Amino acid sequence: MAKEILRSKVNDLLAMPAGQEVLAKGWVRTKRGNKEIAFIALNDGSTIKNIQIVVDKTPETEPVLARISTGACIGVTGTLVESIGSGQAVEIKASGIEIYGECDPVRYPLQKKDTSFEYLRTVAHLRPRTNTFGAIYRLRSQMAFAIHQYFHDKGFVYLNTPLITESDAEGAGQMFQVTTLDLNNVPKNKKNLPDYKQDFFGKMTSLTVSGQLEGELGATAVGEIYTFGPTFRAENSNTPRHLAEFWMIEPEMAFYDIKDNMDLAEDFIKSLVKYALDNCRDDIQFLNDRYDETLIARLEGVIDTEFVRLPYGEGIEILKAAIAAGHKFEYPVDWGTDLQSEHERYLVEEHFKRPVILTDYPKDIKAFYMKQNEDGKTVRAMDVLFPKIGEIIGGSEREADLQKLENRIDELHMKRDNLEWYLDTRRFGSCPHSGFGLGFERLLLFITGMQNIRDVIPFPRTPKNAEF
Amino acid sequence: MAKEILRSKVNDLLAMPAGQEVLAKGWVRTKRGNKEIAFIALNDGSTIKNIQIVVDKTPETEPVLARISTGACIGVTGTLVESIGSGQAVEIKASGIEIYGECDPVRYPLQKKDTSFEYLRTVAHLRPRTNTFGAIYRLRSQMAFAIHQYFHDKGFVYLNTPLITESDAEGAGQMFQVTTLDLNNVPKNKKNLPDYKQDFFGKMTSLTVSGQLEGELGATAVGEIYTFGPTFRAENSNTPRHLAEFWMIEPEMAFYDIKDNMDLAEDFIKSLVKYALDNCRDDIQFLNDRYDETLIARLEGVIDTEFVRLPYGEGIEILKAAIAAGHKFEYPVDWGTDLQSEHERYLVEEHFKRPVILTDYPKDIKAFYMKQNEDGKTVRAMDVLFPKIGEIIGGSEREADLQKLENRIDELHMKRDNLEWYLDTRRFGSCPHSGFGLGFERLLLFITGMQNIRDVIPFPRTPKNAEF
Repeated sequence: MAKEILRSKVNDLLAMPAGQEVLAKGWVRTKRGNKEIAFIALNDGSTIKNIQIVVDKTPETEPVLARISTGACIGVTGTLVESIGSGQAVEIKASGIEIYGECDPVRYPLQKKDTSFEYLRTVAHLRPRTNTFGAIYRLRSQMAFAIHQYFHDKGFVYLNTPLITESDAEGAGQMFQVTTLDLNNVPKNKKNLPDYKQDFFGKMTSLTVSGQLEGELGATAVGEIYTFGPTFRAENSNTPRHLAEFWMIEPEMAFYDIKDNMDLAEDFIKSLVKYALDNCRDDIQFLNDRYDETLIARLEGVIDTEFVRLPYGEGIEILKAAIAAGHKFEYPVDWGTDLQSEHERYLVEEHFKRPVILTDYPKDIKAFYMKQNEDGKTVRAMDVLFPKIGEIIGGSEREADLQKLENRIDELHMKRDNLEWYLDTRRFGSCPHSGFGLGFERLLLFITGMQNIRDVIPFPRTPKNAEF
Repeated sequence: MAKEILRSKVNDLLAMPAGQEVLAKGWVRTKRGNKEIAFIALNDGSTIKNIQIVVDKTPETEPVLARISTGACIGVTGTLVESIGSGQAVEIKASGIEIYGECDPVRYPLQKKDTSFEYLRTVAHLRPRTNTFGAIYRLRSQMAFAIHQYFHDKGFVYLNTPLITESDAEGAGQMFQVTTLDLNNVPKNKKNLPDYKQDFFGKMTSLTVSGQLEGELGATAVGEIYTFGPTFRAENSNTPRHLAEFWMIEPEMAFYDIKDNMDLAEDFIKSLVKYALDNCRDDIQFLNDRYDETLIARLEGVIDTEFVRLPYGEGIEILKAAIAAGHKFEYPVDWGTDLQSEHERYLVEEHFKRPVILTDYPKDIKAFYMKQNEDGKTVRAMDVLFPKIGEIIGGSEREADLQKLENRIDELHMKRDNLEWYLDTRRFGSCPHSGFGLGFERLLLFITGMQNIRDVIPFPRTPKNAEF
């Protein structure tokens, strides 16, 4: 092979004018042909598209071609020529092929015969080599960048909150314990309980369920922050919507009230969807055409629509009216109870037919730190509800009044001792502030149209599964 | 207060022309004055700089001013006027002040009397309110963005590798165990060992020490990936250079050999330093002036310098020559042993006086996956050594040959069973590839000039410390 030609990525090759000598490297998606000629579809992950390699069958090339099958890794030198049949503007007329790695067609786990999502989850170490997961991983990466860019452009500080924590945030979820104690022989203290003094951190520690409380420390110092990192729930939920390890984005802003918070959340999510449509068109088009022909229309719909903003109480009235008019729900609708997925979807998909921001929830079904309304019954919470997904964002204005916050903590029989550091934000220079959390994988379900959350994270962690 | 005036951030106010009505919100850094007038330095975290608020003392303002002390949170309406004494172009002549939160000057933990880094670590929940930690957190955020932007612009896919893992990566470090078993009463199996079948994942799981192996799965599918996320070491190292929880960046690239890898590492780190100097000048200038007057010169030095590229063997010769010439090292210098920090610093700071990339280390002191050289003794490893920091990047070309890799695993008595998924990358369409790891906090030590790694991460986790 001519060593002086620099390798070009497939994404770049497909946009180059015909006529030049090029070098492509990648993995074989398919090989076909006739007696005179072979066609190889080569992909290198830079785009969903393949570049077609055309190889003349000669005594020299035949033994090389015989070693090439789906999944093999090769480098191809040749001339970029105009293509008639490949569906692309250009293809490569090969002058030299180097095989980096063969791929035994009998043993290769990615065969045409089983391409179900269920099967592909069992070979999650290889599934990024498929068109679908290549597209999903590129989209995931693009959306992560869009998130960082969005907040960076607004002057938010990216704050890395801790993963290992002594605190249990809001008591929101079951936690994984983190320890270096020997489980074979747990050391005991005088009370015959595990002696956490001997543990790495000298205390019992867990994996965080939210970075929000630490986020508030940041916001009340540098103004506007966001977190974007892994979060954990040790809940035994074997559903298409739950993961034990997932990524969360949690912005927290000083001097934002609940309205500013809603404005930011709506603008944020619309910007992300627009970014996807503007920058990831090939991958979204592929997913639209292959799995869900309403995907692009649904994404475009979000950008052009003003979200409904509705107090929880009015939402309850709408649902009760629906029941009165004959609509059946599995779960009852009563002021004071949490909405079920079926209720949220009714409001979004049937009643309003667009995203809804539900506000002013009953305080008893929301976390202790939410700002209390004057009615004594509700708090300045907000949940953003999306078609197909349900709750995609949850947030609130935070209670800035030390006395009210302490009273609420006592009412809920929480231990104030563990929260003194958090209460210091209200004790010293307290300020009005708000924030919300977006589950990254929930966003990706919406953007990709995938049905199962295990298919939008590279290596899903779920009950009884921590493979790879 | 006039409600129609929108709040401006301090960073924007300082660049605005005098004459307009403005609204500023933030925290009081200092209040001083005389009988007629009060000066308040207000900071909102958007910049290291404060805006000066000038308040006439009147019977109306005096009681408000009396409630304002360092740390209090206020909103100020007024006219932006040219400033003579504040060191900035403009200041605010206040017409109205709203107090959001007072700050008891007796109890407030951030007092002038103790501002040592040791003390501030004990109030890590409040230290972002200081000039120094505001600057560090902004720099950390900016560098994170620079990293995402760098790889995004090159078409790399951001890959989120798992935190909870069954694998022990390279056996590189002690790991934290993750469990939902009750440590008070660990269930036992028939062999009287902990019954991990009852644990959340049905197996013993730990927190990852590196995302590299999963990164290779990504690179051998979508071409070029990088990780950027938390990583863990359960090592009982109470030093200024070690954390139990830290952030790593690990790019992994198909079709890169060791030279391409070195080129990328050098360009990457130079781009990051340049980004810091171009985009974070105020914060770096502050740290330079306050703590380390050689900081900016050191940063500029890296950008302009070609890194030395030196095989380990030649490094050993240089160190031996130094000993022969009378230089004293604490640790011996012998081919086959790992270099100590004193050796690395001698090469970088005294011999070459610039960053050094050391390559071709003895295989016995490097990980199993590194590409074996033809000499049978060394591997295509590379460590980037920096002044003051020592090793800032470690990487290698990876062994792409299945047989050689399997032999090496057997030689090291590692269990191949646990690595079959990893070996599949070499079994099916193997390709030449390379990668490296950059410790984010090591980079930040270099960029900020800080001495202790606990001061460049918001909430450090170290032995016996997981507070906040």
